Amino acid sequence: MANQFNRCINFSAGPSRLPEEILVKAASELLNYDQSGCSVMELSHRSAQFANIITEAEKDLRELMSVPDTHAILFVQGGGSGQFSAIPLNLLSNSNESADYLITGTWSDKSYKEALKFGKVKSVTPSTKVYTSIPDPSTWNLSSDAKYFYYCANETIHGVEWQEIPSNVPENIPLVSDMSSNFMTRAVDVSKFGLIYAAAQKNIGIGGLTVVIVRKDLLGKAQPVTPIVFDYKTMADNNSLYNTPPCFAIYMTGLYLKWIKEKGGLSAMEENSKIKSNMIYNAIEQSNGFYYSPVAANCRSRVTIPFRVGGSNGNPELEAKFLKEAQAAGMIQLKGHRSVGGIRASLFNAISIEDTRVLEQFMINFMKANSQ
Amino acid sequence: MANQFNRCINFSAGPSRLPEEILVKAASELLNYDQSGCSVMELSHRSAQFANIITEAEKDLRELMSVPDTHAILFVQGGGSGQFSAIPLNLLSNSNESADYLITGTWSDKSYKEALKFGKVKSVTPSTKVYTSIPDPSTWNLSSDAKYFYYCANETIHGVEWQEIPSNVPENIPLVSDMSSNFMTRAVDVSKFGLIYAAAQKNIGIGGLTVVIVRKDLLGKAQPVTPIVFDYKTMADNNSLYNTPPCFAIYMTGLYLKWIKEKGGLSAMEENSKIKSNMIYNAIEQSNGFYYSPVAANCRSRVTIPFRVGGSNGNPELEAKFLKEAQAAGMIQLKGHRSVGGIRASLFNAISIEDTRVLEQFMINFMKANSQ
Repeated sequence: MANQFNRCINFSAGPSRLPEEILVKAASELLNYDQSGCSVMELSHRSAQFANIITEAEKDLRELMSVPDTHAILFVQGGGSGQFSAIPLNLLSNSNESADYLITGTWSDKSYKEALKFGKVKSVTPSTKVYTSIPDPSTWNLSSDAKYFYYCANETIHGVEWQEIPSNVPENIPLVSDMSSNFMTRAVDVSKFGLIYAAAQKNIGIGGLTVVIVRKDLLGKAQPVTPIVFDYKTMADNNSLYNTPPCFAIYMTGLYLKWIKEKGGLSAMEENSKIKSNMIYNAIEQSNGFYYSPVAANCRSRVTIPFRVGGSNGNPELEAKFLKEAQAAGMIQLKGHRSVGGIRASLFNAISIEDTRVLEQFMINFMKANSQ
Repeated sequence: MANQFNRCINFSAGPSRLPEEILVKAASELLNYDQSGCSVMELSHRSAQFANIITEAEKDLRELMSVPDTHAILFVQGGGSGQFSAIPLNLLSNSNESADYLITGTWSDKSYKEALKFGKVKSVTPSTKVYTSIPDPSTWNLSSDAKYFYYCANETIHGVEWQEIPSNVPENIPLVSDMSSNFMTRAVDVSKFGLIYAAAQKNIGIGGLTVVIVRKDLLGKAQPVTPIVFDYKTMADNNSLYNTPPCFAIYMTGLYLKWIKEKGGLSAMEENSKIKSNMIYNAIEQSNGFYYSPVAANCRSRVTIPFRVGGSNGNPELEAKFLKEAQAAGMIQLKGHRSVGGIRASLFNAISIEDTRVLEQFMINFMKANSQ
């Protein structure tokens, strides 16, 4: 915790660490934003100042991800779980239409189960509880009449991440992807997607804001029972200002996007992400089995790395000791999700290479001190 | 703007002025909350620190409003417009069930129109475009089979506010009320309501958070097409932590509620509200028609006061001059909603008596300088 604000290195899976620079800026103008005489939190969402904030955020996001004009960018409430409902409500025009879901972990599974409420959605692979790899595309049972193909680009709990876009889905079926946990940590060809969404609290902001990037020609077919705030067309037509948005969260995302630009954009984020994740995977691989990653090598996540301490099944005592000593060394939120146990290191955009090196060195030293 | 932060007096209808004390506190701990080593924005919503924040906020709200154990308190996303959908989705178990709506302005009208998607809802009075009074209860066409009776406790645009609970609705029909704009500005007997909701950005916080107080026995009957994040039972069963909540907005509401407690609770807020609104209405009444309130005396809002300058139809030039000179004197966001024109002064909890006096004196001086 050697810094002027006594801050920890926070490896939380979300809400997550923010770049310190943007917190300093937010604090400095919290009582009076840009000579407006108000806090950002007090600005009317119809004010010129807030219009500038949301317009800049959209512009920066569009620029950073090269979002084409064919796609709208929406800032919405409800979290990723809100999108579990909003996607089928908007992309299936009635409950007889179908969509394909590829389930690779807890989040795609939850999304699939929610979508069952709104259409004839189908899991393209048999049900399983083991999520350590991406089922081979040759085994997927795709539907020719699917209105979209859904997958989760990174499963935060299981640490399974797609390294490329699924290539075997027919081109006429829009790809829909939950990118909450690896959004803006790597370059993505947005033009290949029908819809991408990301809850902000991992890589670009704070809880309470979700970004949706959606192909405009898919809008306007929402089911009649779509709640108005979940209707993408309503949100798109109103530049995400149909009703009062989460203004402060949009402001924080705006600051975060400027920070990403300053740091070199997505290519820099991706390069950092490779370096950071390699450090941790190398520590695992070079541990002679003291650390263990259950995930297949070709789909190991760069951003959420679950691992065990003390062998492939984990040693609960050693893992508790690991967490305790890590905390004493200023690293928090390293505990794995309760459904899988062990350790999880989330290496989102605001975790620096230096932060990761602290963890890497800790892992090496802990291994030396605790292996037989 | 005579204060150390050069802050304006912000009469915005929402997002609105916040107590300066809570902004100072938020700024002071923005980089490191309560020695956690993290910003509140970076805290996991499953952390002990955040559990404490949301538990305290609920406890304080329950205490301040004397919310009985029969009622759950939920912190949700989606704004008031989200509740327009969530209410019929949760309180009508299928689309053949009915509910009664009393329309007294733009917001209850919008809510009614959204509810038509989800059930056989009915407006109990004939359609109108003139909202300057509450239709006499003897004219309401109530349904005996309504699952609830809906009304908007204060219409922010039209300035029509209920001074008491509607007394003629049969006791077996739950009262549902949008209290966004007068929430916690007056005492309310919560036990008389099936559901109360309030978007936080007017009287208790910032955009992106909505508080729902709902009678527990009404839960668990949601329609199958209810998006999971709008399912009150799911939210109640998970203490509003089913998914990542708008953590920072909940924290700000927590600070605001502590501020209300320190200031003397709802009785103090109500007393202030009476004093503040009387100052403005007196300035209107004593202006010999220079200022004009279109609202019937028995339902004039204490919190959102629309009025005209230069006679009952308003003088656009005088109104523009009023706004310009008010702004020069440090008062902003006094422009009336575009649908009604004129001036609107929103006097929510964070607007002090002293703030209001500045406006009152300005009104008196402006009248002297500009009347024939």
